[in-house]
Amino acid sequence: MDHQQIKPYKKDSDYSYTLGAFPTYELIMARPNIVRKVLVHSAYTDIDKIKELCKEKYIPIENNDKIITKISDKENCYVAGVFDKFDCELSYDKPHIVLVNPSNMGNLGTILRSAVGFGIKDIAIILPGADVFNPKTVRSSMGALFRLNHHRYTSFEEYRQQFDQHEIFTFMLNGEHTLTLQDCPKPKLFSLVFGNEATGLDDSYLGVGTSIVIPQSPDVDSLNLTIAVGIGAYVFTNLK
Amino acid sequence: MDHQQIKPYKKDSDYSYTLGAFPTYELIMARPNIVRKVLVHSAYTDIDKIKELCKEKYIPIENNDKIITKISDKENCYVAGVFDKFDCELSYDKPHIVLVNPSNMGNLGTILRSAVGFGIKDIAIILPGADVFNPKTVRSSMGALFRLNHHRYTSFEEYRQQFDQHEIFTFMLNGEHTLTLQDCPKPKLFSLVFGNEATGLDDSYLGVGTSIVIPQSPDVDSLNLTIAVGIGAYVFTNLK
Repeated sequence: MDHQQIKPYKKDSDYSYTLGAFPTYELIMARPNIVRKVLVHSAYTDIDKIKELCKEKYIPIENNDKIITKISDKENCYVAGVFDKFDCELSYDKPHIVLVNPSNMGNLGTILRSAVGFGIKDIAIILPGADVFNPKTVRSSMGALFRLNHHRYTSFEEYRQQFDQHEIFTFMLNGEHTLTLQDCPKPKLFSLVFGNEATGLDDSYLGVGTSIVIPQSPDVDSLNLTIAVGIGAYVFTNLK
Repeated sequence: MDHQQIKPYKKDSDYSYTLGAFPTYELIMARPNIVRKVLVHSAYTDIDKIKELCKEKYIPIENNDKIITKISDKENCYVAGVFDKFDCELSYDKPHIVLVNPSNMGNLGTILRSAVGFGIKDIAIILPGADVFNPKTVRSSMGALFRLNHHRYTSFEEYRQQFDQHEIFTFMLNGEHTLTLQDCPKPKLFSLVFGNEATGLDDSYLGVGTSIVIPQSPDVDSLNLTIAVGIGAYVFTNLK
């Protein structure tokens, strides 16, 4: 890859970036094969450690202040990884999180981070949706993107046809089943389905499985999407 | 208040803003007495409704595109509320959330939104910490700031001296008690204590009460702070 080719992130390019040391380490450790190169700024103080790791993984490393500044925009970024975008297949025998039209990249990254935190490593994204490879998503995921499978579907029906063995739980403010600690469903294989930040899931989702509401005060419009996903993932992965 | 006095937000000024219709409505409904005025942009399409509400609450309303653009920076903002900053006392007989040195305004707002969502309406902030009145905090709180009591303390000890009847639960990655659905503490009166985004709570907090860890995979560094607070608040308010 020629230096001159590295450009600020574009949605339709076939590569993206990790910005910052933490997600770059996660990238190298979890998916070394997709790393094109690692860029280091001359102000970075921990250069020996990353140099050694790159050597061990046969990854090119380059000092280049100009390119780092160019791709990282305004942030104080001293390490970046350039990686090939990748697609994955979801597991048939593992629980899923299904995000219908997630719109915010920071939220999407935070959700990926929570998902890995609770051991749910298969994420379906129903399009249109936020770009999972945008450096903002990657950064807020703290590199969790590299530790899970994600796949994008053009509709919920397309997803559902492929995974008809998963018990579906749709999280909706008008859900019929209240998610309490005492009385939770205990499915063997499940998909937790969440809607868009602004609109949630429309009423057609009341009929596709068990609709769930997280009990909450009428004093708020709703919980933030990332919080709802975090609680759903925590509860469903802690059931015994 | 003279128009010329309205300036972009400053931490040391005695007023702040709600930016956007939703938090402005929340401000007016929850704390009408602190509203100095409501500003409306000429592009706002739902002017009659807010005009009527302001009339009913004796709040001045003003069309002023220039000032809205000035205070709202780059965002598409058509309604803003100017309000007096306020301080509150926390309740002695209600559960608290205690945030030790929260550093991110968006996170702080999201935490306030979750807290109100789960009915915990008393929030202690241990300084230094993010500015609870910054319009970014107000916006990400979706106006929840106006539905709860918050108070700032210079140290955890200062907080603890005032509230010595609350059972303390500190959320720490090295906490001694794992937060499971089957085996939760069931305190009558509690404070849930959370540390800073980057550093968490230091080990001195292991001794001030019951230390709690939310079970999570070693594949992530930690959960996002807002997710940890959301899960803690959900579990403790749903115990029976």
